[in-house]
Amino acid sequence: MFFNAVRVNGLPCKDAKDVSVDDFFLAANLDKPMDTTKSKAGSNVTLINVMKLAGLNTLSISMARIDYAPKGQNPPHTHPRATEILTVLEGSLYVGFVTSNQANRENKLFTKTLNKGDVFVFPQGLIHFQFNPSYDKPAVAIAALSSQNPGAITIANAVFGSHPPISDDVLAKAFQVDKKAMDWLQAQFWENNHN
Amino acid sequence: MFFNAVRVNGLPCKDAKDVSVDDFFLAANLDKPMDTTKSKAGSNVTLINVMKLAGLNTLSISMARIDYAPKGQNPPHTHPRATEILTVLEGSLYVGFVTSNQANRENKLFTKTLNKGDVFVFPQGLIHFQFNPSYDKPAVAIAALSSQNPGAITIANAVFGSHPPISDDVLAKAFQVDKKAMDWLQAQFWENNHN
Amino acid sequence: MFFNAVRVNGLPCKDAKDVSVDDFFLAANLDKPMDTTKSKAGSNVTLINVMKLAGLNTLSISMARIDYAPKGQNPPHTHPRATEILTVLEGSLYVGFVTSNQANRENKLFTKTLNKGDVFVFPQGLIHFQFNPSYDKPAVAIAALSSQNPGAITIANAVFGSHPPISDDVLAKAFQVDKKAMDWLQAQFWENNHN
Amino acid sequence: MFFNAVRVNGLPCKDAKDVSVDDFFLAANLDKPMDTTKSKAGSNVTLINVMKLAGLNTLSISMARIDYAPKGQNPPHTHPRATEILTVLEGSLYVGFVTSNQANRENKLFTKTLNKGDVFVFPQGLIHFQFNPSYDKPAVAIAALSSQNPGAITIANAVFGSHPPISDDVLAKAFQVDKKAMDWLQAQFWENNHN
Amino acid sequence: MFFNAVRVNGLPCKDAKDVSVDDFFLAANLDKPMDTTKSKAGSNVTLINVMKLAGLNTLSISMARIDYAPKGQNPPHTHPRATEILTVLEGSLYVGFVTSNQANRENKLFTKTLNKGDVFVFPQGLIHFQFNPSYDKPAVAIAALSSQNPGAITIANAVFGSHPPISDDVLAKAFQVDKKAMDWLQAQFWENNHN
Amino acid sequence: MFFNAVRVNGLPCKDAKDVSVDDFFLAANLDKPMDTTKSKAGSNVTLINVMKLAGLNTLSISMARIDYAPKGQNPPHTHPRATEILTVLEGSLYVGFVTSNQANRENKLFTKTLNKGDVFVFPQGLIHFQFNPSYDKPAVAIAALSSQNPGAITIANAVFGSHPPISDDVLAKAFQVDKKAMDWLQAQFWENNHN
Repeated sequence: MFFNAVRVNGLPCKDAKDVSVDDFFLAANLDKPMDTTKSKAGSNVTLINVMKLAGLNTLSISMARIDYAPKGQNPPHTHPRATEILTVLEGSLYVGFVTSNQANRENKLFTKTLNKGDVFVFPQGLIHFQFNPSYDKPAVAIAALSSQNPGAITIANAVFGSHPPISDDVLAKAFQVDKKAMDWLQAQFWENNHN
Repeated sequence: MFFNAVRVNGLPCKDAKDVSVDDFFLAANLDKPMDTTKSKAGSNVTLINVMKLAGLNTLSISMARIDYAPKGQNPPHTHPRATEILTVLEGSLYVGFVTSNQANRENKLFTKTLNKGDVFVFPQGLIHFQFNPSYDKPAVAIAALSSQNPGAITIANAVFGSHPPISDDVLAKAFQVDKKAMDWLQAQFWENNHN
Repeated sequence: MFFNAVRVNGLPCKDAKDVSVDDFFLAANLDKPMDTTKSKAGSNVTLINVMKLAGLNTLSISMARIDYAPKGQNPPHTHPRATEILTVLEGSLYVGFVTSNQANRENKLFTKTLNKGDVFVFPQGLIHFQFNPSYDKPAVAIAALSSQNPGAITIANAVFGSHPPISDDVLAKAFQVDKKAMDWLQAQFWENNHN
Repeated sequence: MFFNAVRVNGLPCKDAKDVSVDDFFLAANLDKPMDTTKSKAGSNVTLINVMKLAGLNTLSISMARIDYAPKGQNPPHTHPRATEILTVLEGSLYVGFVTSNQANRENKLFTKTLNKGDVFVFPQGLIHFQFNPSYDKPAVAIAALSSQNPGAITIANAVFGSHPPISDDVLAKAFQVDKKAMDWLQAQFWENNHN
Repeated sequence: MFFNAVRVNGLPCKDAKDVSVDDFFLAANLDKPMDTTKSKAGSNVTLINVMKLAGLNTLSISMARIDYAPKGQNPPHTHPRATEILTVLEGSLYVGFVTSNQANRENKLFTKTLNKGDVFVFPQGLIHFQFNPSYDKPAVAIAALSSQNPGAITIANAVFGSHPPISDDVLAKAFQVDKKAMDWLQAQFWENNHN
Repeated sequence: MFFNAVRVNGLPCKDAKDVSVDDFFLAANLDKPMDTTKSKAGSNVTLINVMKLAGLNTLSISMARIDYAPKGQNPPHTHPRATEILTVLEGSLYVGFVTSNQANRENKLFTKTLNKGDVFVFPQGLIHFQFNPSYDKPAVAIAALSSQNPGAITIANAVFGSHPPISDDVLAKAFQVDKKAMDWLQAQFWENNHN
């Protein structure tokens, strides 16, 4: 299966005697700017999770570098199995998350503009985004997540770009647009900005 | 705060000597059809969580009845803190969920048509929906969730109906529609089908 | 081994690419009345756990339908690894649980009569029962449990019907009856009302 | 409330600056033989849990000394929130536990005679007992449990000695004895062998 | 008390209606070089944990910036409640950890030299260090930890600089030096390189 | 790998039908005095963990007997994955632990002299020790730990006796002694007092 707890069990565990330092190391190049031009969203997420770094298995943490083109964004998404903490290395970011349904808490949006060195928390499972408001400068962030396999669900991709597509009977009513508009949305190319 | 683990701590705990059977009981009327006409989605979710039934505190479970009008749906949503298991009491349901981003697993849609008595699982944090395909018959389901405070994020509401709205700079690019279309979407009344 | 945490690890996990929608679906017939006449207790529990529905693995939830004959019961039992939440679909139930030993809490019995649509919680590991007080009407409940493998220990069966039997030296003193009475108890046929 | 997770939250936590070494220490006299004559079962359990030793709060462990008279026992019981590990300090013990219902695992009894220095494990939530087979020698054990508030449910006491009693409609059928026998059982004095 | 699980409960939780975006934000200045000259170790750790950023409560993650002077180090230490993942922003680091006692695993040292952009994992509770091998260049790292309150135990400080000091009867034999050497060690000023 | 969570998954789990009582039993001889003369520290730890008693797998508990020669000690060490609770069977012990770095909690030492029957708690991951202050009497303790694979890190051994040794560039500055003193320390024979 493909969610955290099962991955934890599903991934092989080496016998202690076979473990080496390289199980805990990755030459991840997180210092290198990544190409943000291939993604319509204008961002690029390099996530170091247990699939890339076996030593993370069961240790409930992972790390990512995120590059943002000018006016680029890491579009609204969730991590089904993790909270995210983020700091800005370059440029600035307009970030936000939306609370879940609860008595007197109907989808409240919390936003903040982050400058270099600021820290922000996105609680587990909530829809959140980061946007680079600059017209000319890129932005870079380092994020950490509270799972070795946090997963990511980019809302637009999962809703309009799934394989196969979600029935437009469902989506047209859910998003209150006519089927033609929905078909047009589904006809877009929904790429993934995650490495 | 407003997410599970904190709710657990945040909710008061009675001293043992003050606990009574009524802390574990709720006259929830889960046998009664609920009104599905007030929701554009044509559904009504009655969730019995720790805010309604104090004895659930820390016990990692809750239960819900879901009513679906003909052609009604419980639109694409996630539970940030719970897996859901569901069985159909009346009618039939077309259900599905979308997997998260993972190597070779780009947003795969899994769907099934459920008849009375069938059981289906929606893994934690994944976007899922239930749709009543009938033109004339209502449907009813009983669901259980693996948290006393699972939370629910209705995607369309959280993305297009948050308070305040998400900047259309963000949404227009994220959903690849022009700002006018986005403003129109945001102008809809996004109500909540959860009780 | 045979208890939850080990089952979680002990059950095979499919590689993501081999998972299909049928791993999350079961045609469980929870809408169908089950035969309550084969059980002396006059009840029948149909539990959908990870052994029947592989997709539940690690997801900490399961669901059951319970049928009760008139004057039938789900006799005193515990779930070693789960809390139970229950709602009544048909008829009514007299339910209860007994608290564990604690300062000033010596085995206090909490009971309630549940009608259709009511919800009740049985906290993890506590001895509980459901009894159908009606002379002529069956009762039906849907329950959910906070483990994919909650286990069930029917007290009378485990104490008097184990294989091999518990020494009557132990039981006679524990239950304060003479060995003859104990031997008679152990001679009963202790069947299991769980499917 | 009165079960583990809630106790954890329910118990007050001192501010770091107010903590002293005495929060982690108890003059528990676990070296002293305890009186086993007051209990019909012929045993005495001295449990050091979070109610007695505040520093255990949230640390998921507790410890007990158990004294057994000749032919005395710690009668069939469960710990709803803990596994138990036990070693024999004096004498010998005949111990056992009964597995929960599972496919092909109907209430299997596992037993062993333990001598001084032996170690045995009783998995979480399973019914277990310890019996001193000697006609003339006491026995002593040290046990540890995987919760700061494991709880204990002595089966006979909880079933036949609860306050108020469980309806004999329920018990007579559950234990397959007539109501007169059940009333006699319930008329016994069911004391608690736990300190 | 003063360790993680208790802090989680011990820290106040706001009511949902009182939460604001500032509970999830900190102007932490993680982009600014920190002064490494005040610490004999030649390093400076700026940890953003739940005491500084309340929104982290219960979310099991925290983040830190670490500055290293030329030849400076983050000396051997442990995090009693967290795994650490680290990436190098500037310069290079020689890092290592020592495994715990286990069959055939007697305190094996694993080391690696990290360059900019490399990622390394220090498993929970193991003694680890980072050392800047450069004679003239500072180094900078960003680390994340799998607890909102990971704690840090700098070995030399805790062993030789505790308040009050550990008895030199204990330390002299533990470290196999004479008491005079031990008294000299304890006479050093053991400062803390953590902010 | 070689730390707890992975061990849990890494260790094989038997199929229920293959489990026998011997998976839960060990003739551990915890009643027998162990030889404390082979260890310079003058102590001997006999730990019953999941590697010795397979039935402990996933059950989060283990048990140990510790023997102390006159003036012997269990030198400063940590358990990376467990809290320890201890009671004294013979003699007396001077015990202590050092708190982790936290605001206003710089490495505070908590100590107590324990007599027979006293109980003490060493919170997870903190450096602690036990010392037998008697010139002529041995001491014996029984301890329990909140993991089936708690691990143990003897500070002096891990820091000065690792394989290979930690660079004396690192240690000399960390411990503020010259390299010659450090080389002398590393030249000692660092044996392990754990069985």
